[in-house]
Amino acid sequence: MAAVLNGRRVAILAADGVERVELERPRQALEDAGAHAEVVSIASGEIQARNQDLVDAGTFAVDRLVDEVSVDDYEALLLPGGTVNPDKLRMEPAAVQFVRSFVQSGKPVASICHGPWNFVEADVARGRRLTSWPSVRTDLRNAGAEVVDEQVVTDGNITTSRSPDDLPAFCERIVEEFARAPRSGR
Amino acid sequence: MAAVLNGRRVAILAADGVERVELERPRQALEDAGAHAEVVSIASGEIQARNQDLVDAGTFAVDRLVDEVSVDDYEALLLPGGTVNPDKLRMEPAAVQFVRSFVQSGKPVASICHGPWNFVEADVARGRRLTSWPSVRTDLRNAGAEVVDEQVVTDGNITTSRSPDDLPAFCERIVEEFARAPRSGR
Repeated sequence: MAAVLNGRRVAILAADGVERVELERPRQALEDAGAHAEVVSIASGEIQARNQDLVDAGTFAVDRLVDEVSVDDYEALLLPGGTVNPDKLRMEPAAVQFVRSFVQSGKPVASICHGPWNFVEADVARGRRLTSWPSVRTDLRNAGAEVVDEQVVTDGNITTSRSPDDLPAFCERIVEEFARAPRSGR
Repeated sequence: MAAVLNGRRVAILAADGVERVELERPRQALEDAGAHAEVVSIASGEIQARNQDLVDAGTFAVDRLVDEVSVDDYEALLLPGGTVNPDKLRMEPAAVQFVRSFVQSGKPVASICHGPWNFVEADVARGRRLTSWPSVRTDLRNAGAEVVDEQVVTDGNITTSRSPDDLPAFCERIVEEFARAPRSGR
């Protein structure tokens, strides 16, 4: 497994309110497979993590600011959930543009739980087969997605899951999908 | 002012994550005008309040459960914000139906900040002129609303505001609007 993602660069775009396990466990799976993951956010320093949205769960260090990075810097994008996290990201034009550019680039993008709100704001949900946390599904449908209730769904370059319970399947799938990405020349 | 809403019964529908000032200050304004307000929620006991979504801000006691009340029990409905609060309400069919029935009844309904997500889930945003916290606006537009950026907007029986900064205008307006409601015979 260690070589599958050897040296591939993954951006984890997140903000305050991120659900701790939805950043930590996929990041661990990606790093275990050899990827180099960076936390990209909308402000420098640390972001506040939560368990089940309401319980303080420490912080994550921010590696890069979203308005200083480009899709060319990464081979894949991970969008964790937590209700407040994507709610903050979708108000930042640089974050919305980063998500839109990534999806449009064809490089693999994965999101779980409330993370798919990012696809709504970037208007890249249209015609896509997606899943999410139940509360987000009406917004996804209204944005033109075909919403399904499955533990992990891949449609083109977008992979989505519903909740922390789906993390084993999600982590396994994103390692596979991120390994398919063309390795960039950088 | 004390007589304007004398004895009118107002439901405040909220769940964990409610933004403290968006429940407390409208409730105070309504009670100062003579209304009787009750906190209606999806579980008994207390709901957890927040300041700016991420800071613990005490609790509110729950007076009634949403699946035990009816639109006939109240003359007006208030939907505060806080990101996590409407996210929880929209997953509970009894809460969604309560909001839908209230809007369809023609009785006054008011919401601020993230509260208008409730209108999306109840599919009563279509054709309505609404405002909200910026992050919710794409979802409102995708649900068929005409979204405006004004401190307080009344369209028919729905009044909306954007954020805690709008509370003075929002509180003044909801007292006026709730006073217009026909007094029920109960």
